[in-house]
Amino acid sequence: MSLHSVCTRFHIALELIGARWSGALLHMIFKGKHRYAELKAAIPGLNDTMLARRLRELEAAGLIERRVLDTSPVRVEYHLTEMGEELRPVLDELVVWAHKWIPLPEDKAEAS
Amino acid sequence: MSLHSVCTRFHIALELIGARWSGALLHMIFKGKHRYAELKAAIPGLNDTMLARRLRELEAAGLIERRVLDTSPVRVEYHLTEMGEELRPVLDELVVWAHKWIPLPEDKAEAS
Repeated sequence: MSLHSVCTRFHIALELIGARWSGALLHMIFKGKHRYAELKAAIPGLNDTMLARRLRELEAAGLIERRVLDTSPVRVEYHLTEMGEELRPVLDELVVWAHKWIPLPEDKAEAS
Repeated sequence: MSLHSVCTRFHIALELIGARWSGALLHMIFKGKHRYAELKAAIPGLNDTMLARRLRELEAAGLIERRVLDTSPVRVEYHLTEMGEELRPVLDELVVWAHKWIPLPEDKAEAS
């Protein structure tokens, strides 16, 4: 397994979770938000077009799965797959790092 | 510390390392490549304009520092700061995950 092939995989992975909003969506699903409206409400600035697109991309990449619950009315939920679940250590490490190193933007600082 | 402020920091951090090529650059600097030409050669597809821009952004964000060595001719090197170094666990976890879950693109598969 050459260095180059490990790097290629790493770069693909980073672009997958680094795409604007994708990481935030994964983070929210990890936190138990599974419905479209919940996800939209939890991420300020994320519009419907981008939310739908990112959900499709994450599903196509195999990180999440779309479940249609046989209720009335029908309910749709987004859940992590095994592949998605195994990103937890990456996201957890990033939360620790971000909490230590990333200052809150002023407008957010008062609200925190 | 509200959930929202932790998420805000996390989202900023993810966009910082998730920006196209930034993660790859950090990864290469972690691997001991410190010179402009080395970085350019190590990341296929990365052009001069984008390389210069990402290096400036990573420097402005405090993840790397630009060192001018008093040699003849003068040498310029890019090194991780303490803030950058502490991303190592994040990148290491991502390499493990990528190695398990991300298939190599066909054109790269033969070369690996």
